[in-house]
Amino acid sequence: MHVMIIGAAGMVGHKLAARLAATGTLAGAPVERLSLVDVVEPARPAFAGAIDTRVADLSAPGEAANLAALRADVIFHLAAIVSGEAEADFDKGYRINLDGSRFLFEAIRQQGLKAPYKPRLIFASSIAVFGAPFPDAISDEFFNTPATSYGTQKAIGELLLSDYSRRGFFDGVGIRLPTVCVRPGKPNKAASGFFSNILREPLAGQEAVLPVSEAVRHWFASPRAAVGFLEHAAAIDLAPLAQRRNLTMPGLSATVGEEIETLRRFGGDKAVRLIRREPDETITRIVAGWPTRFDARRAEALGFRAETSFDDIVRAHIEDELGGRVA
Amino acid sequence: MHVMIIGAAGMVGHKLAARLAATGTLAGAPVERLSLVDVVEPARPAFAGAIDTRVADLSAPGEAANLAALRADVIFHLAAIVSGEAEADFDKGYRINLDGSRFLFEAIRQQGLKAPYKPRLIFASSIAVFGAPFPDAISDEFFNTPATSYGTQKAIGELLLSDYSRRGFFDGVGIRLPTVCVRPGKPNKAASGFFSNILREPLAGQEAVLPVSEAVRHWFASPRAAVGFLEHAAAIDLAPLAQRRNLTMPGLSATVGEEIETLRRFGGDKAVRLIRREPDETITRIVAGWPTRFDARRAEALGFRAETSFDDIVRAHIEDELGGRVA
Repeated sequence: MHVMIIGAAGMVGHKLAARLAATGTLAGAPVERLSLVDVVEPARPAFAGAIDTRVADLSAPGEAANLAALRADVIFHLAAIVSGEAEADFDKGYRINLDGSRFLFEAIRQQGLKAPYKPRLIFASSIAVFGAPFPDAISDEFFNTPATSYGTQKAIGELLLSDYSRRGFFDGVGIRLPTVCVRPGKPNKAASGFFSNILREPLAGQEAVLPVSEAVRHWFASPRAAVGFLEHAAAIDLAPLAQRRNLTMPGLSATVGEEIETLRRFGGDKAVRLIRREPDETITRIVAGWPTRFDARRAEALGFRAETSFDDIVRAHIEDELGGRVA
Repeated sequence: MHVMIIGAAGMVGHKLAARLAATGTLAGAPVERLSLVDVVEPARPAFAGAIDTRVADLSAPGEAANLAALRADVIFHLAAIVSGEAEADFDKGYRINLDGSRFLFEAIRQQGLKAPYKPRLIFASSIAVFGAPFPDAISDEFFNTPATSYGTQKAIGELLLSDYSRRGFFDGVGIRLPTVCVRPGKPNKAASGFFSNILREPLAGQEAVLPVSEAVRHWFASPRAAVGFLEHAAAIDLAPLAQRRNLTMPGLSATVGEEIETLRRFGGDKAVRLIRREPDETITRIVAGWPTRFDARRAEALGFRAETSFDDIVRAHIEDELGGRVA
């Protein structure tokens, strides 16, 4: 099986590539070839099969056609610019997140017109396709009224994915990822960054800033769970999806206060004391528009699994990023 | 006020143009100028103010920019190819229905970057943004899972309209029109054509074919109501919409059997006898995927009004198309 990951230099794409390279299997079949693509050179994990890395921007002329011409069996499309950047640069957001996806879908269709070709395509969507006000728990049939350009672009990607799948041009599955927590790496400027920062930094003996109240509730899954969602999306029987190809992934609904109590269990009071409260009105207002809880029955029935406690999320972080040890 | 109608040669666009030309008013303000645009030369109704007609294809390079440069105060965007054609010609559907709308929206934004410009833009969407299976009545928060490329293109148009409105580039309102019945003119090949044919033709003393059972239920409004929706969308206060700019219009949920009983009241048994039953499996299957009933509370609360009985729909047809007389 030839597997392509577009967006392989991103956090989740990198972990997915490492996982596939390590296990050498996807959807119960051996992976013989891995093609890793991003706008910057992706890392090349140790892999027993064939592996190639490419620098390509889906939104640039001809690039999507070049990728589709490789005729991978499974394509993970994770490439996007993030919410903050898509909001700050309107043109770039639509170019990368909308045109990039559409060019990829269309290039696959064009390949299929030359000679039969129908890959499975897994599209990383986002809970940003939803916009407040929300019911207490967002059902699988709740409408998409994104509150950001990023969310709009993801929602359009979902619609295109469904239509191209319905027309038989590829077998698409869109998965709406929860906020991934604990994100490894350094603190970033994303409005959602604090959810990870207040765990990751104190667990490493560093200070972190909390800009919102402890009552703030949100929807989470670990990087490990996110990789699991992607692998599972490549493996599931598509018949039960019928024409509804986009799925809200399961996750954990938890408050910042619950995060902090988890931190206390793993890192003690000394870790909790490293959280500095600096209320930020802008971030508080942005976060107030985010979803807090989903009833992700369809995905659960299809076998997608997330963590069910913040302890599990933090344990995954300690095992996967800290070699099992807390500072 | 300068009003532009894009798609002015279509059935609803033509009626809207005639109405605005006759009343000379929109949203409580005088209409000084009417710009009528379509891919074929629109009819030019008698009008006391300035009127111009243009042949333009929104999806052709530069055309959207030319239209936006006219800086109309209100733009009705009704231009689209219909469901059947968008399904038969994938490329043309995306070009006209998706690219055309996006080019228009973007051209308005570009005008605004040159000098402040923020028109009201009314976008004719469709209940085709919904796809089966449905609940008994589709609420205002039900999700969009279109079952056709046309519905996909309209759903994407809605998302773009919302985002461009949220960003302040124009004041958009998307209205999802019910199936318009009784459509004037000749029978056409649209799968939905029979809903109108079985009334219009017998009322004119002509035979009509009924391809489905009398139990089939669907969602209707008259051409007169559709024009009323468009006028009202130009007039409403936008504040209550907040970021949810797309509205399912009210309509009448009725069965084919109810249509036929209405026909009997207006045209007698001799009219009903002109309906020839020719069951068509393809049409039956297509129609089974269409919505049958909405709970259009938001639009009703905003003052949008449709007919509440098929008698009213047929009466509107007899008054507006038949000079008040039945054959």
